[in-house]
Amino acid sequence: MNIALLTDQDREVLKSSLLCSAMSDADLASIITRGGVIEYRRSEYLFEQGERAETIYLILEGWAQITRDEVDGSNTLVEAFHKGDCLAEAPALLGKAYPASCQAMTDMRALALDGPKLLDLMQTNRTVLTQSLAALFQKLHGLVDDVEWLKSRTIRERLVRFLLQQSEHINDGQEFMLPFSKSLIAAKIGTSPQQLSRTFTELKEHGVTTRGQKATIRERRVLRAMIRRH
Amino acid sequence: MNIALLTDQDREVLKSSLLCSAMSDADLASIITRGGVIEYRRSEYLFEQGERAETIYLILEGWAQITRDEVDGSNTLVEAFHKGDCLAEAPALLGKAYPASCQAMTDMRALALDGPKLLDLMQTNRTVLTQSLAALFQKLHGLVDDVEWLKSRTIRERLVRFLLQQSEHINDGQEFMLPFSKSLIAAKIGTSPQQLSRTFTELKEHGVTTRGQKATIRERRVLRAMIRRH
Repeated sequence: MNIALLTDQDREVLKSSLLCSAMSDADLASIITRGGVIEYRRSEYLFEQGERAETIYLILEGWAQITRDEVDGSNTLVEAFHKGDCLAEAPALLGKAYPASCQAMTDMRALALDGPKLLDLMQTNRTVLTQSLAALFQKLHGLVDDVEWLKSRTIRERLVRFLLQQSEHINDGQEFMLPFSKSLIAAKIGTSPQQLSRTFTELKEHGVTTRGQKATIRERRVLRAMIRRH
Repeated sequence: MNIALLTDQDREVLKSSLLCSAMSDADLASIITRGGVIEYRRSEYLFEQGERAETIYLILEGWAQITRDEVDGSNTLVEAFHKGDCLAEAPALLGKAYPASCQAMTDMRALALDGPKLLDLMQTNRTVLTQSLAALFQKLHGLVDDVEWLKSRTIRERLVRFLLQQSEHINDGQEFMLPFSKSLIAAKIGTSPQQLSRTFTELKEHGVTTRGQKATIRERRVLRAMIRRH
């Protein structure tokens, strides 16, 4: 694929993604699969559990969710991903089957990267190797953080942290979209939808208002103070 | 270091460790640092937060804990590690400072591996590269599992899972050592020491007895049924 076909916004996503940020255009072009940029409609599958994995997906726009079919026939949400996130590095690099399914939650676009070719590149290019490792370790640390938060923080603190993460580039008082439904937010921070609603109500007096999937934070400073440990 | 100096038990630990299991003796010898096998007394430090990292530690015997000094002067337990676990891959491979300190919780022995040399080996040897990646991904998946459990399971279910993990190779009715103090177990499964004691008391009627740091499970089958989802 010709890298020049990527939009300016796509290139910004690539630059902010740890995995691809340090790659030269030539290196990046060598690992993009023939599919290149793929567009998905909401509810379409990027891949299904059990399929043989060769492709790593870097999300350029929109949201995707990973779900796993359980032995009992139920379906568990594993994680939600958005712009700049990479999916399926493990199975694609190790040449295994996808252990879960991935579905578009919104209309979305993703860049398809070839796992075996990335492995080749890691062996010939030290920067790509250390950068790929750094990307993996960043994921590990993010998960270690999640574990710490889930163990030691209240539901309110977890919700405040989630809202601050979602509004990182938003000004005080400016409306922003919550990335997904409230039941998914509840699942993500590990609580029930009922408890989540109660917590949103409590946060009103601290300047958080919501309207459907839109939210406003009066002063981020106030929220940051709520989760600081003294 | 001469690989022949490792005991039979050490070699078993190496074989069961994902990172080193697929390495030839020559490859392994090439990444073991001059220190080789290092012995530590309880409370001794393997490394301290802020030191420049070059060494990855593979624990051969005993327990170690990673703790982090917080801005407010307090000290957080990040994780506890034992036989077969690898420590500090991230900073040692990326050539950074250790982001936390590591201290022996018991008398212990560890094999010291050289980060930069392992990076070299990953580039020349495809098996070592994929095996190292597999080891990292296994850690990632373990953390994803932890996150799922913390979000969706009760304290009792988490404790039962922890006890089953600790007694994997123990027969029904046979006594085994809990790996660390009850306050550390409480921190690990994300509860208070008080709640942990209550939960241990509840588990008595399901055949779990404890005496100091020793525990017995009458029938593992009963515990497994308690955490199965239907």
